This record gives sequence, C-alpha cells and structure tokens, in this order.
Amino acid sequence: MFGCLVAGRLVQAAPQQVAEDKFVFDLPDYENINHVVVFMLGTIPFPEGMGGSVYFCYPDQSGMAVWQLLGFVTNEKPSAIFKISGLKSGKGSQHPFGAMNIPQTPTVAQIGISVELLENLAQQTPVASAAVSSVDSFTEFTQKMLDNFYNFASSFAVTQAQMTPNPSEAFIPANVVLKW
Amino acid sequence: MFGCLVAGRLVQAAPQQVAEDKFVFDLPDYENINHVVVFMLGTIPFPEGMGGSVYFCYPDQSGMAVWQLLGFVTNEKPSAIFKISGLKSGKGSQHPFGAMNIPQTPTVAQIGISVELLENLAQQTPVASAAVSSVDSFTEFTQKMLDNFYNFASSFAVTQAQMTPNPSEAFIPANVVLKW
Repeated sequence: MFGCLVAGRLVQAAPQQVAEDKFVFDLPDYENINHVVVFMLGTIPFPEGMGGSVYFCYPDQSGMAVWQLLGFVTNEKPSAIFKISGLKSGKGSQHPFGAMNIPQTPTVAQIGISVELLENLAQQTPVASAAVSSVDSFTEFTQKMLDNFYNFASSFAVTQAQMTPNPSEAFIPANVVLKW
Repeated sequence: MFGCLVAGRLVQAAPQQVAEDKFVFDLPDYENINHVVVFMLGTIPFPEGMGGSVYFCYPDQSGMAVWQLLGFVTNEKPSAIFKISGLKSGKGSQHPFGAMNIPQTPTVAQIGISVELLENLAQQTPVASAAVSSVDSFTEFTQKMLDNFYNFASSFAVTQAQMTPNPSEAFIPANVVLKW
C-alpha cells in the first residue's frame, strides 16, 4: 500500500506491518538522510474517510524512541516529501505507536504510517521544519530564521551611554538589522 | 526500470520509451508542480559503466520544447529529488532528445531520462536551481544569505567616534553579527 524513498537511495515498497493500521519502514544510517518521500503505491486506496499520518521515529541518546509527526498522505494527496535533517534535536510529539515496542538501533530510524480517520488527522499539527515543497513554507522558514537572528543580535544591543570606550569597535544600528 | 513522483500526486512507474535508451514521463498541469522525484524501481540496474541523465522539458510560449538538465540517477545514487518550480524562465540546455518529436501540450511538461555512459554524464552540468536534498547546498545557501546580510549591515557600521549623540538608539557590536 505504501512506498518510502530516501533521496539518493533505492525505493522501499515493503513496510513492516506492526498492527492492522500501522506500517513501519526502517531508515538505516539515518543521520545521513536529508529528505524522505512517503507515497501510496496506487494499488489500494485508503478506506473512505481515512488517511495516514506519517511519523519520523529516531532513538534519543538513551536509546528511547522519539516520534515526531511529519505530515499526512491521503487519497487526495497520495505523496509527500519531508525534510528530516534538523529534526533530531526536536521534542517528541504524541503518537499512536506507543505499544509497538519497535526495536531501536542507534543508527536506524523509522518512518511510521498510522491509518486514521481524516477528522483525527485534521486535529494533528506536524513539526513545521519537516515541510518541503511549498515555496511559502520556505519563505516562512527564512523569516523565522531572520527573526531568530534579530532576537539573538538584539540581546547584545547597547546604547551609546552603556558603551565602554573603544573607538575601533564597529557597531551596527539595530534598526538596520530589523529593517533587513 | 524508472519511477517518477510529483510531490502530492500518485507515483508513475510506466514511462513512455521513446528510444532504446530514452524514457519520458508526462507531467500534466506542470505549472502547479514544485518537486519531482525520479528513481530507479530496483528491478533492473543500469548496465555497467552507465547511468541516466534526467531532463525537464516544458513548452515555451510558442509551444517549442525547452529541455533543462536536472541531474542524474545511477546505480550508486538511484534516486533524486528535483525542484522544478522556478525553472520555467530558464534557458534550454543541450539535450539528447532532439529527434524525438515529443508532442507538446501547453499544460503538460515531461521528465526525460537518457541512459548514457557515466563518463558523458560527468561532463554535463545540471541547472543549479534544481538541486534539492543536500544539507551542503542548503547550508551554502544559508551561508550566502548571511554573508549578504553581513555585507549589508556592515555598510551601516559606525565606530563610537563617528556616532552622533543619541542615547536611545540601540547598537549591535558588528562582531556579534559576524560570529552568528
């Protein structure tokens, strides 16, 4: 029913079915993975009113599985590209794979797909940094990065009254950073 | 031998074979496509010493086919993600599909795969904006953006001696920007 493709590697089309409605792909050497494509093979559609939530699962430093919601596939949108590099420092989210006891190996992560009611999927919020393939989300990402930078730089801001005399140090007016 | 997947759509695994060594997938409604994944199905590898160059073909305003080299798939790197949004204003490149007479429809583009000697592929340069999925290229992009920012902000830099007295204006030490 599902395929999974790590950019640069061979496609996988045979997930492990860990429950009637749960499917798992192994991602060996996951620290060298940037993008993962999850897609329906086109053979069997989701049952009416159902779709799949797509999770990334990786072992934290103590070997515990951390699950993060990447997004969804549905009959209307049967494939998606996710960026998983950069997720490894993130916090885990609620997930439906709790009782699965998927064995964790230090270098192997997983993609988990959970078949659920569409109305349940609509209430779940994927991690923002996993979104790929929309120019909008890239613009948002860039904006967020710049906001972070402004917050970072501002924490060093001083007024002239606070400056220790040092005629050679260059200063940038904070409003220049903000305008940019 | 090949599959093609437009992010958000169903996978295609049956290209049109337009010559012994040339394969073409149709991309309907291509103006609404951001990313395309091209991959080997894993059934038949390339012959020893050969690989595939991947082209994007779209009709220009007069209906003529414009071909652009996106990149490559090989037995060692059997899949790749390409960003095709943003290519439509680019110039065509040399391509091996000249005599194919692939019919052009205004809203339909193509992905063409040409099986060639690896040493020929090594001499071809894909359009830079099609590259996706390498942390390096993303990091480079971010670095370039930040360099631009530093150059921009530095042009406003002043030393204390040059400052007009204004105790309320906040300044950021330039080395904070550089370190970041």
